[in-house]
Amino acid sequence: MGKILIKGGLVLSMATDKPDLRITDVLIKGNQIEQIMKDIPEDGVDKVIDASGKVVMPGLINCHNHAAMVLLRGYCDDLRLMEWLSEKIWPAEDRLNGDDIYWGTMLAAAEMLKSGTTTFADMYFFMDEVATAVNDSGIRASLCQGLLFIDENVERRLNATQQLFENWHGKADGRITAMVGPHAPYTCPPESLKLVMDLAKDLNSAIHIHLAETTEEVNQMFKMYGKSPTKYLSDLGLFEEFHVLLVHAVNLSRDDIYLLKGLQGGISHNPVSNQKLGCGITPVKELRDLGVTVALGTDGAGSATTLDLFEEIKSAAWLQKNRLFDPTAITSYEVLKMATIEGAKALGLANEIGSLEVSKKADIILIDIEKPHLYPHNDICALLAYSVNGADVDTSIINGQVVMENRTLLSVNEREVMMKVRESARRITGQTVDIL
Amino acid sequence: MGKILIKGGLVLSMATDKPDLRITDVLIKGNQIEQIMKDIPEDGVDKVIDASGKVVMPGLINCHNHAAMVLLRGYCDDLRLMEWLSEKIWPAEDRLNGDDIYWGTMLAAAEMLKSGTTTFADMYFFMDEVATAVNDSGIRASLCQGLLFIDENVERRLNATQQLFENWHGKADGRITAMVGPHAPYTCPPESLKLVMDLAKDLNSAIHIHLAETTEEVNQMFKMYGKSPTKYLSDLGLFEEFHVLLVHAVNLSRDDIYLLKGLQGGISHNPVSNQKLGCGITPVKELRDLGVTVALGTDGAGSATTLDLFEEIKSAAWLQKNRLFDPTAITSYEVLKMATIEGAKALGLANEIGSLEVSKKADIILIDIEKPHLYPHNDICALLAYSVNGADVDTSIINGQVVMENRTLLSVNEREVMMKVRESARRITGQTVDIL
Repeated sequence: MGKILIKGGLVLSMATDKPDLRITDVLIKGNQIEQIMKDIPEDGVDKVIDASGKVVMPGLINCHNHAAMVLLRGYCDDLRLMEWLSEKIWPAEDRLNGDDIYWGTMLAAAEMLKSGTTTFADMYFFMDEVATAVNDSGIRASLCQGLLFIDENVERRLNATQQLFENWHGKADGRITAMVGPHAPYTCPPESLKLVMDLAKDLNSAIHIHLAETTEEVNQMFKMYGKSPTKYLSDLGLFEEFHVLLVHAVNLSRDDIYLLKGLQGGISHNPVSNQKLGCGITPVKELRDLGVTVALGTDGAGSATTLDLFEEIKSAAWLQKNRLFDPTAITSYEVLKMATIEGAKALGLANEIGSLEVSKKADIILIDIEKPHLYPHNDICALLAYSVNGADVDTSIINGQVVMENRTLLSVNEREVMMKVRESARRITGQTVDIL
Repeated sequence: MGKILIKGGLVLSMATDKPDLRITDVLIKGNQIEQIMKDIPEDGVDKVIDASGKVVMPGLINCHNHAAMVLLRGYCDDLRLMEWLSEKIWPAEDRLNGDDIYWGTMLAAAEMLKSGTTTFADMYFFMDEVATAVNDSGIRASLCQGLLFIDENVERRLNATQQLFENWHGKADGRITAMVGPHAPYTCPPESLKLVMDLAKDLNSAIHIHLAETTEEVNQMFKMYGKSPTKYLSDLGLFEEFHVLLVHAVNLSRDDIYLLKGLQGGISHNPVSNQKLGCGITPVKELRDLGVTVALGTDGAGSATTLDLFEEIKSAAWLQKNRLFDPTAITSYEVLKMATIEGAKALGLANEIGSLEVSKKADIILIDIEKPHLYPHNDICALLAYSVNGADVDTSIINGQVVMENRTLLSVNEREVMMKVRESARRITGQTVDIL
């Protein structure tokens, strides 16, 4: 088993209540963190990484993505949600084949790796191709097939999830885990959702589901069932029996918020996508005050246009401060936790990732803070939350493997992936600009 | 006079109502754009810049900054405005000397140049040192001394502005212009503001002033004068007689908005600072619909923590979409205009900068879009507004001089500036973290 020594960095473990910044070394053995202490000797080490001038912290965790939607990045921005979906996104998605999904996911992985994300949760289709791209790119992922029950093919849909578990759960050196992914309350009637829950029980799986993204959705649920989407899921027993990853949770009443108290799992807050689609603002402060785990996600690049989680970190902080007219509503360290250890909790992986601790998996990023826009070093957490962007990530390690060093990806051929994606996009959107 | 040829880039002039993207060449002669057309011959050209794979666009314009406040970056984030100002910022500013201001402004210039800003408007003090840093760094700036009338030294304050005009207006190869800078309605009583207006008339100057940043300020003005800060300025005749740069304009009533109809000058919208301090959201859409020029600024890094104008571009778009629950509220191209030609209008420099047109000054940036996070190229304006960050700017030209090439600053010694700023910050904030 290889040993990597990360020497002399400013380590932020994200394992403590308050920031525990200190200059120290980190030793990786195999896929795990073996030791965190000063002056670890170099004997027997296969590779030494000089981290002086760099922050060493856990890789970021993106709790909600439709990764291959990078193919549709910028394709139809600045449109209303229903027009965006029905006239643009859905017809384009109908043209996607497995190859498109593979290369799209590879591009998304490249973008995420280059901006500090080491784990993402994905809900999409052609999940075999998604998993293959995760395997090939070296990233860590929690995958689910999006289950919409809008026709009769219930059996086929559930089988696809079963297949995903059989083929990929625990595979790629343990980097891939799977969840069951009913799409949303308004696309999953009670009888279908019950089948989904039975399947999740059989598979001993967590559940990944959209919730209350728009007011329209809430209105629709009241029309259909006389209750909010949150109450709908609560009444079906979802929150009692399962670890649940709830996505968006924007339009919550005070009653809804209290229904989420004690939630096993967590919420993926996706502030960029929510803003761009004009959906509203998740009551992050109220949820956190009740002890609910709130993590961060990007949503697909079709809406967010970027998969740089540092943008979500900034927006998440800014939105709560401004919504409540209170700059103390959330601190830089708290929002960094949302992007790391809270993300791990939301994915049910807090024993493995999300902080730098001995015996956890070695998912580590190095951030170069010797740059004009990151000077002076008055407060490192403020810099990380409010000033750093994805391009400041210098090195990424996942599961003990160096996947990016000095901003060069080692696990993905960037140029090949961009060219393949260009080909796919030409066919799917028909509006790509050729500049080379 | 030197000639520079920018070859084969994807040029976005920002001079037209709709995006006019085309692959073409740009020829610079001296400090001006000489020609924009395909296949300009290379004979007699001193330098050829290969722009293939890059967007060529006007440099960004940051309409409100307190540049040297980078010294206080992250020093006291996540605090309430009055606590932030009175317990942290003002005492720290009292410790600033001319050297600090020079090096702080140099660092700010370095950060701005590296993130695509070619012009900034500054309101601060020690303006001789600020202007010297502008001169040395190669950036373009519109400078004013912030005038607070909170004691008896009215004469001395007005003299400082007169000095700024005499020493620096039109200097540094024309890169520096000056304005008169009364701080804000609540710090400028009517009799002082009248003296300021007289001075501005004498100097034939525009006026740069904060307006309605917080609800507290509006309340205070109603208590003091029985009217809103906007009405206060309007009643004094400020909007009739002067080109005015109004900063923030967050807390505007419908009446206030209509008072700004026909405004000569424009508004600097600073969404990141406003959000971080929990101030609210400028009604950008309503102002633009009335024909008011709305530009973008960062405010000082003391509040914004970043001077990357691409962050303001993103936030400006996202905030309007989400505030109005309408993704069509503002388009990517419109917000790019706010960062370029609208900024030039707000500074009274629209004849010189803000777009790529023959005979305008050569303030040009090249953005490398051959990167995973900027693929595929479905919509270049969407990428520029929502996906690009400052680190994607590859080359910057100001007044016909290449100030950054392949991300290396040619006009500033980055390392020296960072070390000087570290020294200053050590004394001023007493809380810098030494990592090297």
